[in-house]
Amino acid sequence: MKFDLNEIKDPSFIKDLTIDELKDLASCLRDFIIDKVSKNGGHLASNLGSVELILGMHYVFDCHVDKFIFDVSHQAYVHKILTGRGKDFDNLRKYNGLSGFASYKESSFDHWESGHSSTSLAAQAGYLLTRTNKDEKVISLIGDASINNGIALEALNYMGSLKGINPIIILNDNNMSISPSKGFASRSFSKLRTSNLYQKTNNFFANHTPTAIRNVFHRIKGSIKGFILQDNYFEDMGFDYMGPYDGNNIKIVIKSLKAAKKLNKPCIVHFVTKKGKGYSFAENDKIGLYHGVNPFSKEEGVKIDESTISNSLLVANTLLEIRKQKEFSLITPAMIRGSELEEFLKEYPSSLIDVGINEELAACLASSMSRRQKVVLTLYSTFAQRSFDFLLNDICRTNSPVTILIDRADIVPTDGDTHQGIYDLAMFSLMPNVSIYQGRNQSELRSLIKEKFNLSSPTVIRYSKDSFKKEILKDVDVSKDFEIVKEGKLGLIISYGENVDYVLSCLDDNDLDYTLINVRRIKPIAKGLIDYLIKEDKPVLIYENVYKNGSLGEAIASNLAFMNFKNRIIAMAIDDNLTLPCGTREELRTLAKLNKDEIIKNIKLLNKN
Amino acid sequence: MKFDLNEIKDPSFIKDLTIDELKDLASCLRDFIIDKVSKNGGHLASNLGSVELILGMHYVFDCHVDKFIFDVSHQAYVHKILTGRGKDFDNLRKYNGLSGFASYKESSFDHWESGHSSTSLAAQAGYLLTRTNKDEKVISLIGDASINNGIALEALNYMGSLKGINPIIILNDNNMSISPSKGFASRSFSKLRTSNLYQKTNNFFANHTPTAIRNVFHRIKGSIKGFILQDNYFEDMGFDYMGPYDGNNIKIVIKSLKAAKKLNKPCIVHFVTKKGKGYSFAENDKIGLYHGVNPFSKEEGVKIDESTISNSLLVANTLLEIRKQKEFSLITPAMIRGSELEEFLKEYPSSLIDVGINEELAACLASSMSRRQKVVLTLYSTFAQRSFDFLLNDICRTNSPVTILIDRADIVPTDGDTHQGIYDLAMFSLMPNVSIYQGRNQSELRSLIKEKFNLSSPTVIRYSKDSFKKEILKDVDVSKDFEIVKEGKLGLIISYGENVDYVLSCLDDNDLDYTLINVRRIKPIAKGLIDYLIKEDKPVLIYENVYKNGSLGEAIASNLAFMNFKNRIIAMAIDDNLTLPCGTREELRTLAKLNKDEIIKNIKLLNKN
Repeated sequence: MKFDLNEIKDPSFIKDLTIDELKDLASCLRDFIIDKVSKNGGHLASNLGSVELILGMHYVFDCHVDKFIFDVSHQAYVHKILTGRGKDFDNLRKYNGLSGFASYKESSFDHWESGHSSTSLAAQAGYLLTRTNKDEKVISLIGDASINNGIALEALNYMGSLKGINPIIILNDNNMSISPSKGFASRSFSKLRTSNLYQKTNNFFANHTPTAIRNVFHRIKGSIKGFILQDNYFEDMGFDYMGPYDGNNIKIVIKSLKAAKKLNKPCIVHFVTKKGKGYSFAENDKIGLYHGVNPFSKEEGVKIDESTISNSLLVANTLLEIRKQKEFSLITPAMIRGSELEEFLKEYPSSLIDVGINEELAACLASSMSRRQKVVLTLYSTFAQRSFDFLLNDICRTNSPVTILIDRADIVPTDGDTHQGIYDLAMFSLMPNVSIYQGRNQSELRSLIKEKFNLSSPTVIRYSKDSFKKEILKDVDVSKDFEIVKEGKLGLIISYGENVDYVLSCLDDNDLDYTLINVRRIKPIAKGLIDYLIKEDKPVLIYENVYKNGSLGEAIASNLAFMNFKNRIIAMAIDDNLTLPCGTREELRTLAKLNKDEIIKNIKLLNKN
Repeated sequence: MKFDLNEIKDPSFIKDLTIDELKDLASCLRDFIIDKVSKNGGHLASNLGSVELILGMHYVFDCHVDKFIFDVSHQAYVHKILTGRGKDFDNLRKYNGLSGFASYKESSFDHWESGHSSTSLAAQAGYLLTRTNKDEKVISLIGDASINNGIALEALNYMGSLKGINPIIILNDNNMSISPSKGFASRSFSKLRTSNLYQKTNNFFANHTPTAIRNVFHRIKGSIKGFILQDNYFEDMGFDYMGPYDGNNIKIVIKSLKAAKKLNKPCIVHFVTKKGKGYSFAENDKIGLYHGVNPFSKEEGVKIDESTISNSLLVANTLLEIRKQKEFSLITPAMIRGSELEEFLKEYPSSLIDVGINEELAACLASSMSRRQKVVLTLYSTFAQRSFDFLLNDICRTNSPVTILIDRADIVPTDGDTHQGIYDLAMFSLMPNVSIYQGRNQSELRSLIKEKFNLSSPTVIRYSKDSFKKEILKDVDVSKDFEIVKEGKLGLIISYGENVDYVLSCLDDNDLDYTLINVRRIKPIAKGLIDYLIKEDKPVLIYENVYKNGSLGEAIASNLAFMNFKNRIIAMAIDDNLTLPCGTREELRTLAKLNKDEIIKNIKLLNKN
């Protein structure tokens, strides 16, 4: 049977399919996903692994009544296809195209959009508490790493304490969510997972037992499980626990989800799935290369472009350089792959602390360890939001000497509004004692890390999600908080990060006679900068790719205003209330009125009366 | 035996005391605490409850080598007294006095200062990971509500996964930490706690068993416990579990801590204590009145001043008024007492959702519930920090219609730098779609809540920790985002909240001829305000009690600068890097250069060239 996935409008048709037809559909979905993701990039391995789980959800439950909540929702491609969005996959993660995550705007079948990990269970609790139709089921799908995060554990605890709401949690256990996950739950899963006998027995029961004797089966299973894992975390939490089952066997998935549906108790159904299932490159991936990918050749698999180097790798290399000279601990929340720390892990395994997707713990641990050791903390800009209280109260308020490396800062292409790096600058700006730095290019970024590493107060160094042609790096003297890149007569343009050269090309290409200033220390405002601007006494334009509220532009403008500065000031940044969807960096700059045309237009305004 | 607690320099002497002498010391400590707290205010019930636990810690461990980590550290008074700070209790929570929490500045025996809940276990992990002396023990003391928060669960998970670090966790279970705690752990505790037979057996063993046969005892205990609580959460997490024991019996406390010390395994020692022990008013307190107190009469106990009403209670009353007309859900993270919601709970129990000390869950649940129901979320300003990612990503980014009530905003007296409400304004200012309001007085606060309740986007309403003489409340027309309080010729003064009348009294008392503007909507900047300022074309001063970075003053100044405003602008707020310790509101205003003298000085600067 051949399915035209572009034509699907509603998932109801799958309820009439036989198991063999469902298997065909699964295979067809996999080919489709591999094809579209290889062309547009996207989350690959997780979507291939969860095909049968999501098919099973739509087979057993009714998405017109029941509510499906996908954790993070990067793994929801099959749900998107079945709910009528197959035709949009040619524009996956493109400007005005299909989001890589669940989206309220896209579909009334998407009930929770998050992009950040581990919120699905709290969302599920919210839906259960506001349910008016008692027949409505609320089903969450969450991975084995996500369920270890604080808010997921809080929500588990909380739902376990409520009577009569009966959440159904599908645990998708692929044993390698982003980085190998940490903590008890993970260890227990691994114990269960590796017990082949147990899984085979379980699968046999799920496959052959009529649901009528489900209770007996459950008791038998309980006693079998007793030998393998004496205490079960989830049962302690107040949930009936079922599994682990083979999550890539559609027949088993359907049987077990039907059982869960009939149970009418809070329950967790634990499935083991194969990440990357059906695409050998992804199946054999050991390091997470196929988690999120750029466009690649289906036949050849993902190739690493050896001619370029990402800022992440540059930073990892710099940390290795420093570590060779000096001891320190490096803390990452499940981002060994994302932050390209594989080499660091190989060379200094005992200095690298991966706490799993626990950004809260990462920051708090950094504060505590820094009481007697040098500590470096790496976070993505958008995920650093989850550490806010610990960054502010435990690191900054106490003036702890932690170096905080913020990856994916500024505008982030293709992942949409949940992954923008446009809020961290304002976020750190409101914290005491912390300094914020950014480098104009990779040489400066490396020099900044090497020099600012030794500061005795909290230090943030931001860098974008960008790659550059490999070059021999120079040692830059970054002791000055700002530098004059180019002198001009008509006014002063201020920027930081890679935007400095973006603005420079505007000036050069249009023969605009303005001074260009590269700011290295954003907060506190670069030493001497305000005095310099007042001395120059010319119009000022500040150009940034962050949220305007709390930006450097606001800080400079208000400081100049306090000093009775009489020249025109223009701040270009992302306006309040604007969120940035998928798109290339340039498309998003255009949306935010931050592209070169806008820069030129604003520069020309500087000297008008 | 009589102890002079003011004379204690070092806790070592207690190791030579007999059990009877320790009992005398405990009693003496209680009298001292009741005496000092009744004079200065402070955390009472928790400090009375944990006397024997902290005595036991200092008896069994050596604080010169071992590290004690107190969760929140509001319960560490006995530790303070034993480490030489008894003499400073006359200045408890006063300006330049003793902090109510652990403090790095105060003592080298304070290894973790937090003020916010549930970070002790992460801190403990950090100390264990950086330990160089293998004989050093790291002991945390954490309450039964705190251990249910996300970061505590993350840290438990994480420590359970590490080999050879052997944390000792003392669980102080008083069954009423701030509000009754929620979730599994709580339910399990309650099951254990209420089994009298079990506790008596346990106490008997702890009391009579020589440590030599500790292992046998442990196995026997295991089998007894088996009947009471089949699965034990903590043992799943990789910890040896001991308890529950009577935590107010010093002999039992010492025996069990000695056993834990010898165990050389990760372990949790579970003690049941009586909150408020030794002071009958506090022992009989059912609602948490003796958790944190203002000065009171020892003989009469805490009296509620019926002539005044706090902003918290005003808000709770307003919510009751609204709820009578319209259904909504009200979410609180363990703050039924703090937010004075007892009456609301009594009237509408099913509309009030207390999630325990889970601010993360509270915000995420609010977002999810608001998909199909009106939701109000109440948070303290400082604890809202823990919800940051969920407020930004799940409520504001998605433009969810949640009303967020921010209590304890602006300068907060007596609790010190971990409890200031000076960061939330900048924090919400960097989030999209959200509006921020504040009322000049209780009538305005009430009217704002009633009117803004119906907005279809996220709405923050802030209010201070302050009480006022009871008055008949007026309905204020708050449809205008700002009002002119008083007109003047020389310039424009802008403020919000109760600071408006603080500034007004400066103007009136000194015959200063300035216009005073009361801003109700802080973000986005009150509609029409910038135009009005430009039209008036006079010097402008903005007066606030929040952190300057990200303040209204910065927003107004930068906006005026962008509009080519030529008059002087002065923003009075809390300077970057300044943190505010204990003190009265007025002392802290003076420290931050925000008192009336400073206002007058700055107003006079407005019209100087």
